[in-house]
Amino acid sequence: MTAEFSSESLYNELVKFGHIIPAGVPGIFGRGHIFEDILKRFDALVSRIAKDDGAEVMAFPPILNRKVLEKSEFLDSFPHLAGTVFSFHGNEGQAKDLSARVHAGQDWCDLQGMTDVCLTPAACYPVYPSFTGTLPKNGRLVDMQNWVFRNEPSPEPTRMQAFRVREFVRVGTPDMVVTWRDTWLQRGLDMLHSLSLPAQSEVASDPFFGRGGRLLAMNQKDQKLKFEIVIPVISQEKPTAVCSFNYHQDHFGKLFEIHTADGDTAQTACLGFGMERIVMALLKTHGMLVSDWPVPVREVLWP
Amino acid sequence: MTAEFSSESLYNELVKFGHIIPAGVPGIFGRGHIFEDILKRFDALVSRIAKDDGAEVMAFPPILNRKVLEKSEFLDSFPHLAGTVFSFHGNEGQAKDLSARVHAGQDWCDLQGMTDVCLTPAACYPVYPSFTGTLPKNGRLVDMQNWVFRNEPSPEPTRMQAFRVREFVRVGTPDMVVTWRDTWLQRGLDMLHSLSLPAQSEVASDPFFGRGGRLLAMNQKDQKLKFEIVIPVISQEKPTAVCSFNYHQDHFGKLFEIHTADGDTAQTACLGFGMERIVMALLKTHGMLVSDWPVPVREVLWP
Repeated sequence: MTAEFSSESLYNELVKFGHIIPAGVPGIFGRGHIFEDILKRFDALVSRIAKDDGAEVMAFPPILNRKVLEKSEFLDSFPHLAGTVFSFHGNEGQAKDLSARVHAGQDWCDLQGMTDVCLTPAACYPVYPSFTGTLPKNGRLVDMQNWVFRNEPSPEPTRMQAFRVREFVRVGTPDMVVTWRDTWLQRGLDMLHSLSLPAQSEVASDPFFGRGGRLLAMNQKDQKLKFEIVIPVISQEKPTAVCSFNYHQDHFGKLFEIHTADGDTAQTACLGFGMERIVMALLKTHGMLVSDWPVPVREVLWP
Repeated sequence: MTAEFSSESLYNELVKFGHIIPAGVPGIFGRGHIFEDILKRFDALVSRIAKDDGAEVMAFPPILNRKVLEKSEFLDSFPHLAGTVFSFHGNEGQAKDLSARVHAGQDWCDLQGMTDVCLTPAACYPVYPSFTGTLPKNGRLVDMQNWVFRNEPSPEPTRMQAFRVREFVRVGTPDMVVTWRDTWLQRGLDMLHSLSLPAQSEVASDPFFGRGGRLLAMNQKDQKLKFEIVIPVISQEKPTAVCSFNYHQDHFGKLFEIHTADGDTAQTACLGFGMERIVMALLKTHGMLVSDWPVPVREVLWP
């Protein structure tokens, strides 16, 4: 792999080596078998590191109850990133109209109506409603891998409209949640360093919408509510976040009426590995051919 | 497990044993860790059976280029099942309006506009555009596991809005494609019988929209273009399709300009295992606790 960093050259290399398969829309592409194998191997590494934590494994579809999105306040902060699912609710005549317009290349969006579901905007969102009620004494810890949607078409290979996140969610007292977050921040760095990736952690903020968003982002940074682990993938100056740690304080606890064993409003934190970004970081750092990778790195992933 | 068959009792048992986690919308739910483990074990069994076929492994996101949906003619036959992705394209004032309406429980669908992507309507759809051009002499064979969306909210646990399909797609001459389909029809039955599941194959048809749909379905049955392997899961009289075999003849070959090495329009066929339905068939047939399953069945899945 060249030492040069550029979004375009990484995209082209990934395509050339069959790691990604273009699909005609920015941010949407197929993944080749080596890409998938690396992703599964990293996923297994995370499982090995986490194996004694006693997390409950769950899996959720890429589709979420729209009421959860509405309740979560995601639409207040990131209306531009959310995706809703629309469908056809018409009769036979309207179906003919739909078909004719599609074949004529005409607009057909007025023949679509909103459904009760939306795209999952963050890997942890489906789990919070399942916590409603009183938690066990030690809180809960959930382990998931979900597909996430973001409406941000981009030619940057690292900025996808659909991607997988290996996510852990901790819910309990503030102490439990913050201690757990700090443990994983170090674990995440150690794990990525074991793969000879130049990973660093930093305080971060979310891409809030609009002018007011700048203030929200500053506030989030001041309170150190979000950390990211970053690695240079398409730029040395602006490294890419491959792991994100969010401390929500009592945001979800209040919204979904989650209480600790002592009756307080529960706090939550989550961490997510951006699986495709990890794979791209490995391919960029160590080369497009796995056979060229340093032996110690291969030994960690293929033990 | 009781010998009784009912959609409601199966749903309740799945929830009671933590196999599925209700999410407030019909056809959308989380999956518990045992459910996921069984699913992964069945997936591995399919991989073992298919290992010498030389299939190319690919993975696609649950989101598809909308142009592929439009071109595929899916909207002519199944406009009611397709899902399109809408998002917010407005300014700051409109974002405030959106937020206010969401919090007031008012309609906000006019603040959403169509995007260039839609939900994947069938697991094989993303792959056809990647075949455009001339195939190698022996055609191609692709192996995928993708999330599929269907706009058909239903209380039946087997009828999901989002589910995973392990899918194989064969493209080549008519002979290659039909021989391959027939081989897998037998393999699929053998594999499910090895799990002591009462699986049978039958000629089937798709749920085409509207009055004209009945004729299309009859035609599809007459030509034996679709087979299904079915197992009683929620009903003994109407067993559930757990595997589907579709012979498209030159439908996709024409649409996506795919040619055989001899220059003819290529033919395609696909087969898909409905992963969640297989898991539910196992749980219904052998019991909600894996420890109660017959030893030979457990030995096939946990070798």
